[in-house]
Amino acid sequence: MSLLVQKYGGTSVADEGRLRNVARRVIRAADEGHQMVVVVSAQGDTTDHLIELARRVNPSPSDREFDMLLAVGEQISISLLAMAIEAAGRPVVSLTAAQVGIVTDDIHKKARIVEVKSRRLARELKAGKIVIVAGFQGIDRNGDITTLGRGGSDTTAVALAAALGAVRCEIYTDVDGVYTADPRVVKGAYKLDRISHEEMLELASLGAQVLHPRSVELAKQYGVRLEVLSSFADVPGTLVEEADKMEDVLQVSGVTSDKNIARLAIIEVPDRPGMAYRILADLAGAGVNVDMIIQSMRRDHVNDMSFTVSDVDVERAMAILGQTIVDIGARGVDCDRDVAKVSIVGIGLKEKAGVATAMFQALAENGINIQMISSSEIKVSCLIARDQADLAVRAIHDKFFTGGLQVAKEAG
Amino acid sequence: MSLLVQKYGGTSVADEGRLRNVARRVIRAADEGHQMVVVVSAQGDTTDHLIELARRVNPSPSDREFDMLLAVGEQISISLLAMAIEAAGRPVVSLTAAQVGIVTDDIHKKARIVEVKSRRLARELKAGKIVIVAGFQGIDRNGDITTLGRGGSDTTAVALAAALGAVRCEIYTDVDGVYTADPRVVKGAYKLDRISHEEMLELASLGAQVLHPRSVELAKQYGVRLEVLSSFADVPGTLVEEADKMEDVLQVSGVTSDKNIARLAIIEVPDRPGMAYRILADLAGAGVNVDMIIQSMRRDHVNDMSFTVSDVDVERAMAILGQTIVDIGARGVDCDRDVAKVSIVGIGLKEKAGVATAMFQALAENGINIQMISSSEIKVSCLIARDQADLAVRAIHDKFFTGGLQVAKEAG
Repeated sequence: MSLLVQKYGGTSVADEGRLRNVARRVIRAADEGHQMVVVVSAQGDTTDHLIELARRVNPSPSDREFDMLLAVGEQISISLLAMAIEAAGRPVVSLTAAQVGIVTDDIHKKARIVEVKSRRLARELKAGKIVIVAGFQGIDRNGDITTLGRGGSDTTAVALAAALGAVRCEIYTDVDGVYTADPRVVKGAYKLDRISHEEMLELASLGAQVLHPRSVELAKQYGVRLEVLSSFADVPGTLVEEADKMEDVLQVSGVTSDKNIARLAIIEVPDRPGMAYRILADLAGAGVNVDMIIQSMRRDHVNDMSFTVSDVDVERAMAILGQTIVDIGARGVDCDRDVAKVSIVGIGLKEKAGVATAMFQALAENGINIQMISSSEIKVSCLIARDQADLAVRAIHDKFFTGGLQVAKEAG
Repeated sequence: MSLLVQKYGGTSVADEGRLRNVARRVIRAADEGHQMVVVVSAQGDTTDHLIELARRVNPSPSDREFDMLLAVGEQISISLLAMAIEAAGRPVVSLTAAQVGIVTDDIHKKARIVEVKSRRLARELKAGKIVIVAGFQGIDRNGDITTLGRGGSDTTAVALAAALGAVRCEIYTDVDGVYTADPRVVKGAYKLDRISHEEMLELASLGAQVLHPRSVELAKQYGVRLEVLSSFADVPGTLVEEADKMEDVLQVSGVTSDKNIARLAIIEVPDRPGMAYRILADLAGAGVNVDMIIQSMRRDHVNDMSFTVSDVDVERAMAILGQTIVDIGARGVDCDRDVAKVSIVGIGLKEKAGVATAMFQALAENGINIQMISSSEIKVSCLIARDQADLAVRAIHDKFFTGGLQVAKEAG
C-alpha cells in the first residue's frame, strides 16, 4: 500500500466549509488506496490573532514563549480536521509534532528539523487511520516546542514524506502550480507540468511564494517527489522531481523579479587583503544577508565594493557600515533603493552557452541598463532599475517562451 | 527555600490587564522568598469559543480530538502569563502537562491523574525560574492529551503541590474564601478562616462551587494545605488543612442547600432479597447517581424505597425505572421535583451528640417538615420542600452561628 503525504495551507483550512472540503479530498485519496498522512497549517488568521494577544501582554516576548503560543494554531487545525474526517465516519487521529517526534534544534522561531521519528506514525497507519499532523512545529531535545519559521509546514510535509518513504508529497495551496513567470505581470506565463528540485530551489530563493526554499532543499536531499496543487480546483499541478528522472527539461523554467532589495556600495575600499571579509563579517554578525557581491577596480590600490541586501535590512546595514568604513579607511557608503533583480532559472543553463546572452539581448532590445550581474550553475540574475522590472520580466519571458528560442532538450 | 503552588482560574487571567495583575501577585510571592509553581486555566471564554469551533465541524467529535482541541486553551494562558512575567524582567518558563509529565489514565474528558513527574519542574526551579503549568490537562501512557473535566485545574494544582512537597497550594478565584453559608441567602454568613479537608470535601460535594471535590480529595490524601483566596482583593482567604493540625474546630462549619434535585419513590417493592441492589444497579448502569436512599416498611412483605437524584437525571431515571418496576413487580414510581436538601457539615458532628437535634429543632421552629434524613460522620442532610430551602438555611445558620449554640472546641 503506497503512502501519500498531503499538506494544506492556512487558507485551505480557514473555516468549517474549507475543512470539510479538505476532509473530502483526503478521504478521496484514501479511497484510491493510499495510506494518508496530512499536514496542516494554522487556520487563516489564527496566527495573526495569537501574535496580537502576545503583543498586548509583552511587545518583545522570548522566542521560546512565542513558539509555545504560536504552536496552538496548528493544534486547533489538526483537531478540527480530524473531527471533520470523523464526521464522515473514517478512522482518524491527529498528532502534534511532539507526539510524532519531529525533533528540531533549539533555535526558536526558525528551528531546523534534525530527526523525524516514525514509530507512532507507523502504528497509527497500521491501525488503518488517516493521520493528521501539525505543521510548522517541532520539539527540541529538551522537550520544548519550537516553530520552523516561514513556510515551515511545507518543510514538515517533506520531512515526513522522506522519513516514511512516501510516493509523493502534495502541497495544496491557493495557486495551482509553478508558473514560468508571475501571471499578474506576464500575460503569456503558463503553468509548468514539471520542474527539477534545483530549479524550484532557485525560484523559491528568488522569492517565488509557492514553496519555501528549505522544503525544496529537503526534498532534493531525500529525493522526495513534490507536487504543488490548488486545494480549490481539481486540476493537475506542477511536479517537482529529481532532474535525472525528468524526460526532458526546458532551457529556462522561470523568469522572476525581486523588487524588495537595495544596492549598497562602499566607495574606495583600500586594496589590502581581508577588506571584503571584514565588511561581510560585520554584516553577517548583525544578521544581514548579502547577495550579488561585486568588487570592481577603481584606480590604483582602491576598489569599490557593491552588493545587494533585502529592503528591510537597509537601515541596519547602513548603521553597521558607518562604523566599518571608519575602521577600514574607506571613503563612504552609497545606497540605491531604486533597483530590482530579474533572474532566469533553468537546468538548461548548465550546458547551453548563449542562454545568458539571450537574456542580456532581451534587456538591451528594451533599453534596460544592467547594473550588476551574478550567476549560479542554473541561474542568471541582473540588477536593473526598479521601475523597469516588470518590462524586463515580460521581455525575457517573450524571448524564451513565446519568441521560439526555448527548446525542450534531453536532460543531462 | 519553600515552594508555593498558586492556581488562577479563567476569570483571573481573562485579559491582558488581569494577566498583568496575576504576574504581579506571582512576583510578589517570589520576592517573599518562595519558589513558585503557578497553574492557570484557559482564559475567560476561550473554552466556549473552542467548543463552538468544534460544533460547527462535527456536533459529536470523539473525546480524544475534543481534548486535543480544548487543551489549546491552557497553552495560550501559560504562554501569555509567562510573557507578562518576562515583561517584568523575571526568569520564567511555561510548561504544558505533557512537558511536566502529568500522567493520567486514558479516560478522555474526565481523566484522573495517576502520576506527576517532577524532574523537569525541579530543573527549572533549580535554575531560578518561575514555572507556569497548564491546568486541566494531562497526558496518558500513550502520549495522548487528556483533560481532567470540571474543576480540573484545581486538581492539577493540588497534584503538583503534593508531588513537590509545597508548603501550601493557593487557589485564586473570584470569591474570597469559604463561607458558613451562601452570603446571598444568609445575611450573617461569614468567611471561615480555616476548615478541614473532610468538611471542605462534604461542602464541595454538596455543591459549593469554590473547589472541586476531586481536588479536595487529593489534598486530603496527600496532606496538602489548600488556601482559597480572591485574585482581585488583597484579603486573607480560607485555609483548608488537616483536621488534626487545626487548633480548634467549629461544631458546624457550613450550612448549604441543593435545590437541583428530585425525589423518586418506588412504591410497593416486594420484600425479597436483592430488590434494592437491582434498582440501584439499573440506575448506576445508566450513569445516574443516587443519593439519600431510604427504604421504609409499608406493610407485610412490601416496602417503599425512596432516593434523590440530580434534576438533570430525572428523565433518564424515570425511563429506566419504568422497566425495572415491571421486572421486579413493584406497583409504581413517584417523582417529586419540589424538594431541596439542606445540610450541615462539621467535624464537631463526629463527637458531639445533639448537633443534629439542634438542626431538626431549627427546622421545627420554622414549621418546616422533614421528608428524609441522611447523615455521614460529619454531615447531616434533610430533604424538605424546595420553597422552604432558603428559610431553612437561614434558620439553621442562626441557630448555630448567631444563636450562641456554636462553641469552638478542641480538635480530637
